[in-house]
Amino acid sequence: MNIEEKLKASIRDVKDFPKEGIIFKDITPIMMDPKLSNDVLDHLEEIYKKQDIDVVAGIESRGFLFGYPLAMRLGLPFVLIRKKGKLPYNKISHDYDLEYGSATIEMHTDAVGHKQKVLIHDDLLATGGSAEAAALLIKKSGGEIAGFNFLVSLDFLNGEEKIKEFSNNIINLASY
Amino acid sequence: MNIEEKLKASIRDVKDFPKEGIIFKDITPIMMDPKLSNDVLDHLEEIYKKQDIDVVAGIESRGFLFGYPLAMRLGLPFVLIRKKGKLPYNKISHDYDLEYGSATIEMHTDAVGHKQKVLIHDDLLATGGSAEAAALLIKKSGGEIAGFNFLVSLDFLNGEEKIKEFSNNIINLASY
Repeated sequence: MNIEEKLKASIRDVKDFPKEGIIFKDITPIMMDPKLSNDVLDHLEEIYKKQDIDVVAGIESRGFLFGYPLAMRLGLPFVLIRKKGKLPYNKISHDYDLEYGSATIEMHTDAVGHKQKVLIHDDLLATGGSAEAAALLIKKSGGEIAGFNFLVSLDFLNGEEKIKEFSNNIINLASY
Repeated sequence: MNIEEKLKASIRDVKDFPKEGIIFKDITPIMMDPKLSNDVLDHLEEIYKKQDIDVVAGIESRGFLFGYPLAMRLGLPFVLIRKKGKLPYNKISHDYDLEYGSATIEMHTDAVGHKQKVLIHDDLLATGGSAEAAALLIKKSGGEIAGFNFLVSLDFLNGEEKIKEFSNNIINLASY
């Protein structure tokens, strides 16, 4: 099996979560499988070691799971993009709209240097709202977007449309 | 420098976070340093590879950062202990008291098998409230506590007192 087939064999569909009518892609079985976890990281390392990246940024909290190990594989710093109020030090923030209401994400001001090339990682690309917000936050901080990486993409939600203006380098391992 | 000295050189004190009078131990500089990150994992792997552990469990969300890479180093499944409403599948939960109010943590029912030995990991041991709650959740699920691991311990808060009844195998890398 290739990596997409392996991931799809592991990812679990959960009906009606977080609300009725939604089929949620549960990635926790991947974490329960150390062999598959390492295969995923081998695959990501192979892709990104050839690319010009200075920093990997992960979006709280499932983006921490593969983002940090990927950064370590690449020998790069890992930056945490967190929900409002979680980071202790000097921060920049970005507000964005959700389906209902709004949200704020934050990053430390010293996390991304001027013109550093940042790979944004999250577990899942849905509508692209979080990834777009992360890209805007990084640009506000003076960084550049080297690309986006997701384990899973829900293609019918057209998330790529929302983020391709920042970078065409969008890679996801399992598309639905 | 030994690992404790290296960690203490990297961890940043942030005054008055999350509220006045508290000095917060900011571990984000560790994640920005891939060499130190790998040193920490080498050190943890060396300790735990000799121990009888079936599963590593990490407490959301900073416990995901080192918990999952450690599980991968040990070739073991990684289990997510999350705040209420985040996990999609069949769950067990545990309520516990905080300084103000209460909190609920959850775990998937299929995450820990009967009598499996679980190493509980979090970034920081403070009063021990979260670690105790995690231990009770795992016992409720039929698992056993193999030990506790923290990057940092605030010894003056006596967290070890609260959790040593579950296991005496409590290891933290940097004590304050």
